[in-house]
Formats: sequence, C-alpha cells, structure tokens
Amino acid sequence: MTDLFEEFVQFRLKMNQRIHEAGNVRIRQFFALDGRVYEEGALDVKTKEMIGFTASLMLKCDDCINYHIVKMIQEGVTIEEFFEILAIGLIVGGSIEIPHIRRAVVFFDECLERKEKGLSLDMKLE
Amino acid sequence: MTDLFEEFVQFRLKMNQRIHEAGNVRIRQFFALDGRVYEEGALDVKTKEMIGFTASLMLKCDDCINYHIVKMIQEGVTIEEFFEILAIGLIVGGSIEIPHIRRAVVFFDECLERKEKGLSLDMKLE
Amino acid sequence: MTDLFEEFVQFRLKMNQRIHEAGNVRIRQFFALDGRVYEEGALDVKTKEMIGFTASLMLKCDDCINYHIVKMIQEGVTIEEFFEILAIGLIVGGSIEIPHIRRAVVFFDECLERKEKGLSLDMKLE
Amino acid sequence: MTDLFEEFVQFRLKMNQRIHEAGNVRIRQFFALDGRVYEEGALDVKTKEMIGFTASLMLKCDDCINYHIVKMIQEGVTIEEFFEILAIGLIVGGSIEIPHIRRAVVFFDECLERKEKGLSLDMKLE
Amino acid sequence: MTDLFEEFVQFRLKMNQRIHEAGNVRIRQFFALDGRVYEEGALDVKTKEMIGFTASLMLKCDDCINYHIVKMIQEGVTIEEFFEILAIGLIVGGSIEIPHIRRAVVFFDECLERKEKGLSLDMKLE
Amino acid sequence: MTDLFEEFVQFRLKMNQRIHEAGNVRIRQFFALDGRVYEEGALDVKTKEMIGFTASLMLKCDDCINYHIVKMIQEGVTIEEFFEILAIGLIVGGSIEIPHIRRAVVFFDECLERKEKGLSLDMKLE
Repeated sequence: MTDLFEEFVQFRLKMNQRIHEAGNVRIRQFFALDGRVYEEGALDVKTKEMIGFTASLMLKCDDCINYHIVKMIQEGVTIEEFFEILAIGLIVGGSIEIPHIRRAVVFFDECLERKEKGLSLDMKLE
Repeated sequence: MTDLFEEFVQFRLKMNQRIHEAGNVRIRQFFALDGRVYEEGALDVKTKEMIGFTASLMLKCDDCINYHIVKMIQEGVTIEEFFEILAIGLIVGGSIEIPHIRRAVVFFDECLERKEKGLSLDMKLE
Repeated sequence: MTDLFEEFVQFRLKMNQRIHEAGNVRIRQFFALDGRVYEEGALDVKTKEMIGFTASLMLKCDDCINYHIVKMIQEGVTIEEFFEILAIGLIVGGSIEIPHIRRAVVFFDECLERKEKGLSLDMKLE
Repeated sequence: MTDLFEEFVQFRLKMNQRIHEAGNVRIRQFFALDGRVYEEGALDVKTKEMIGFTASLMLKCDDCINYHIVKMIQEGVTIEEFFEILAIGLIVGGSIEIPHIRRAVVFFDECLERKEKGLSLDMKLE
Repeated sequence: MTDLFEEFVQFRLKMNQRIHEAGNVRIRQFFALDGRVYEEGALDVKTKEMIGFTASLMLKCDDCINYHIVKMIQEGVTIEEFFEILAIGLIVGGSIEIPHIRRAVVFFDECLERKEKGLSLDMKLE
Repeated sequence: MTDLFEEFVQFRLKMNQRIHEAGNVRIRQFFALDGRVYEEGALDVKTKEMIGFTASLMLKCDDCINYHIVKMIQEGVTIEEFFEILAIGLIVGGSIEIPHIRRAVVFFDECLERKEKGLSLDMKLE
C-alpha cells in the first residue's frame, strides 16, 4: 500500500494552516463557506459529495478530487457508483479526463483499502 | 413565458439530424454512448442527471446545461435541490459561474412553468 | 451609441434579485464575499479592479469582463492602461482571447462615452 | 442561405481596425505573428489550418473556429475531412464540444455553399 | 537518456488494465472509440495524430501529449514539423502553453533518441 | 529552506535554450514578445507583474505563477498584497484554485526568504 493518503493530508493541513495564519479575511471566509456548502440540506451529504467530486474532476483539480474521494468513501459510495460517475465525467469531458481518472482510481483503491483495514480516513490527522 | 425551450429543442434536433446524416461512424458512436451513460445502474437516473448537470455547469456548456435541466425536472429535482447544486458549482468554480447560473435559472424557471401547465418537456418534439 | 450598458445592467439586476429570493444561504454568502473582496486594503480599489478584470478575461467570462470594465472606468483607468492589460491577457492566454478582447473594447468604448456625456455608470439602476 | 459569413467578417474587420488604431505595439506585434504562423513551412498551409482549427475547437473559441473554417475551405478541406477532425475533437474534448460542433457545421455548410455558388470567401472584404 | 518513456508506458498500461477490469461498460466503449478515431479515413494517420496532439496540447493533458508524441514519431513526423505545431499551439493558447511545450520537447527528444537507437516505441510493452 | 527556486530556474533556462536552438522563428518571436509586454508603459512594472501573476493563476500554469512570483518580489510586492491577489483569484476562480494557491504560497515564502538572506533571485543564473 502506498502512502498517497498521508502525504495528501499532511501537505493540505500544513498549507491550510499557513494560509489561515496569513490572516486575509476574505480567504478565511471563502474556506469557511467551502466547508459548509456540503452540509445536509435538500440533498443529502452523499449526493453533495458526489456532486463536489464531479465538479473537481471536470476542472481537473487533483487535490480536490482526492478530498472528495475520501469524503465519498466515508459516505459509503461504492466502487460501482464511483465508476459510474467517472463514466459520465469521461463522456462529458472527453479523453483528457483519462489521466485524472487513472490517478483517481489509484487514490480511491488506497482509501478503500484503508477503510477495510480499519485505518483512519480522518483528514484532520488528530 | 419565453420560448427558450422550443428554440433550444428545435436547433438541437435539426443539427443532430444534420450531423447524423453526415455519416461519420465515430461521431454516431459517441452520440449513442452519450445517450446511454445516464441510464439507471448502480446510481439512479435522477442522481446521474444531477451529475451530468454539474459536469456541464463546470465546463460552461450552456446547451448541455439546458439539456440536463429538462431531464432533472422530468426526474423530479426540486428547485431547492437545483439551487444546492448551483451553490456547490459556484464555490468550486468561482464567480465566473454566475452568468451561467443566471441563464440556468431562467431556463429552469421556464421549464418548471411548462411542467406545471402540463406542457410537453419532450426533447424529441414528436 | 448602442445600449449594451443598460441591457447588461438590467438583466444582471433582475437575475441577481431572482437568485437572492431563492434563499440559498451559501449562494447569498458567496455573493456578499464577491462584493467585498474588491474593497480597499493593502492594494487600492483601482488595482484590485484591474486584477478582477484580468481574472475575468482569462476565464472568458463576458459578463464579469463587463462588470469590471464599468468599475475600472469609475476608478479612472485610462484607455492606454486598458489596452496594456489586454496586451498581457493576449500574450498569456493566446489568440483565443481576441473575440473577448473585441467585445471588451466595444463595451469599454460605450462606457467611456457614457462617462464623457455625464450619463450614469451606476450598476444599481436607482 | 443565412448571412453568418458576412456578419462575421464585418464585425471582425471593424474591431481589428479599432484595435489597430489604439496603437498598442505589443498587440500589433501579436496580431502580425498570429497571421504568419500559418504560412507554409515544413507543414503545408492546409495542414496548418486544420491544426489551427483543432486548437480553436478545443479552446471553444467560436470566432477562431469560423476563421479557420473559411481558410480550410479555401485550402480544399473536404466535408469528410472536416467531420473526421470534429470526431477527434469530440472524443478528446467530450460532449461539451457538441454545441460548438453544431455551430461549426452550420458555418461550414454556409461557406461551402458560398464557394459552390462562386461567392467570395475573402475575409478582407475589399 | 532518461526513462520517461518507460515510466509513462508502464503506469498507463497498469491503470488501463485496472480500469478495464472494473467492468464499467460505458468506459470500455469510450476507450475502444478513443482507439479507433485515429484510424485512416479521409485523413491519413499522420495527420490525425498531429490533430490529436494539438487537441491534447490545447487542453494541457500531459499524458495525452506524450501518447501522441510517440505515435507522431512512429508516423514519421519530423522535429521541424513538431515545432511548427508547437508554434501554432503557442500562439493560439498563449504563454501558458510554455511549460507543457518544455515538457513535450523533453519527451519528444527522448523518444526520437530511442527510435534512432533502434529501441522499441511500442506502448503495449509486449 | 527547500530548493524550489533553483530547480525552477535551471529547468526553465535549459529548456528555453533547447527551444531557442530548435530555430523556429515564430516561437522565438513569441518569446521575445512575452518578455517585452511587462515593460513599463502607461502601467508600471509592479502593476504589470501583478496582472501577469493573476493571469497565470487563473489559467493554472504553475511555472508561470512561479515566474511572476519572483518578479513581484523583485518589484517589492508585499505578502499582504500577494494574499489580496490570491483572495481575488480564489473568489473569481473558485476552490479549484486552492491547490495552486498552496503551492504559490510555498514558493513565495521561499523566494522572500532568499531575498531577506541576500541570496540572488536572478532567473538568468549568470
């Protein structure tokens, strides 16, 4: 098993901390808003995470893709459901999505393996 | 009530017909695949249409946005659910999504009004 | 003189109102944040508007381009300064920026003419 | 027959003239370079125009698409060749290319009809 | 000589295999279609590979760029022809293409060296 | 202190040299133009570099981002000004900008540290 998960979480936490300390109010407000838009509302959290994943995939943001993969697994998205989202993303966005899909599958497989082994998927690294 | 729906459907049908008649096999195969990827599988059609809509919104394809709006309304997506998808799209894709969101709301409102009046939302225009 | 300015302002106001009334809290918070990020800080408003214009030009968002053109003219950006921003945008983003540049010049010319004639550039249309 | 060709050529000429007169040296140099990169070299003009068209299609620049359609028809690109380029663009860029493909086919058909009727395809409108 | 070619081919093969085994029918059909769109038709394979390369360059997909570089070298595209495509891509897409162009030149140089040394450019790694 | 600066400068110089030697006239002319568009004009160099940075951030070109970070620090852009540009970029371009912002902050911090230690920020590496 590779350590993509831990590398991802640690760089993310360290830099979010650094950016927070810089003290720009608008950036802090954006980060807060970014966290709350996925909370349960008319749509449940699982659906919102699938939508956030789709948005990230289409805009080819590998770190955002990874973030939503972790959340989707926490919400119980199965590997069949995951590949159906990838299929839609592939047909809407074309073959240029393939490299992002390859990396997303590597990361999904690793995170699912962590879950099955009872390892933490906590992105706060307490 | 404007006639965005009918204008959209007629141009779409006319040009899809023109492209089909040109006889390029790969394009025909792509169009067939594009139709089938939204069929029920591990995910239901409503969820897939919301994912297709999200993908289209992120890639700023107004015609694709309109297509999935019609399908989402057929599948029973409510206006609250619709705005929650827009909120995620706005935060993932930024303020440049706003003009597309404005136009999407105009089109959603018109299509919902058609549905409530019992007018057809059939994109095949039989 | 064309009426691009009034058409732009009226559709923008009408739809912002419609979106506001829909009541999605996250969208409202984003709109508020979007308004405040251009306020004076370490950088003055004129510089921030030039940066907002550049961002909009690179992401090919015609409505955002128009919004920042109005604000830049209010802040005293000259036509020579405007063309120097366009030149950077053209070289960073390539010839695909040209159609957006053509339309931006039409809109800038109209708004500058409004200013010289003493007509309002108020986007709130009181 | 619609008049898309003439509308396209006239707005393009008028605004290129306006931009030229503004006198920004870097923009003038870019426009000159943009004209010369399609001249015959190791690759012939027909191939270069097909490459320029592909680039424009992938970046979804409708005006650039139209420009290269006119040049491709002048260089003898057939409708079968045109659809084969569209097929590659569709598979690389995905279904979001479809609206651009629909409009490109409308414009190609009109320009081909002009050519067959002996009407001018001169974009300088002398 | 670096080993970019082998690293690229091995990761690509391993992940394509993994994706194939996942068994999503629509993804399999897309991959099949993606392979066949470059077959000889009204345009020859060399021209189609140059068009596929251009499309990949414009959408900044480094893996797709690499794939088409290998195919272009197999089809006899010369380094002068390669740089003429890069020049068009640079002027259409702007200076943001430069990092992709730098990496593409590194990969092209390595693959051309492999060819001149009689080393395999087979992406199936039999 | 990491060595991101030196790694960036060395690869950039080596490949620019390689591309220059290839002798394509249009690419050389583009590189020359790319250098001159940031020279003082109606706008000063500091403002132009902030605009070039914004353009690079919006188009997610990490190498271009790094280049303009070095130039901005040379021109005296402070960390507060830098974060205000990032805030605008984040709100215009959305959460997908965050990974680029994280990396940009790492690079800005390193370059600022170089400056404070009296180390060279010369990208020509004489």
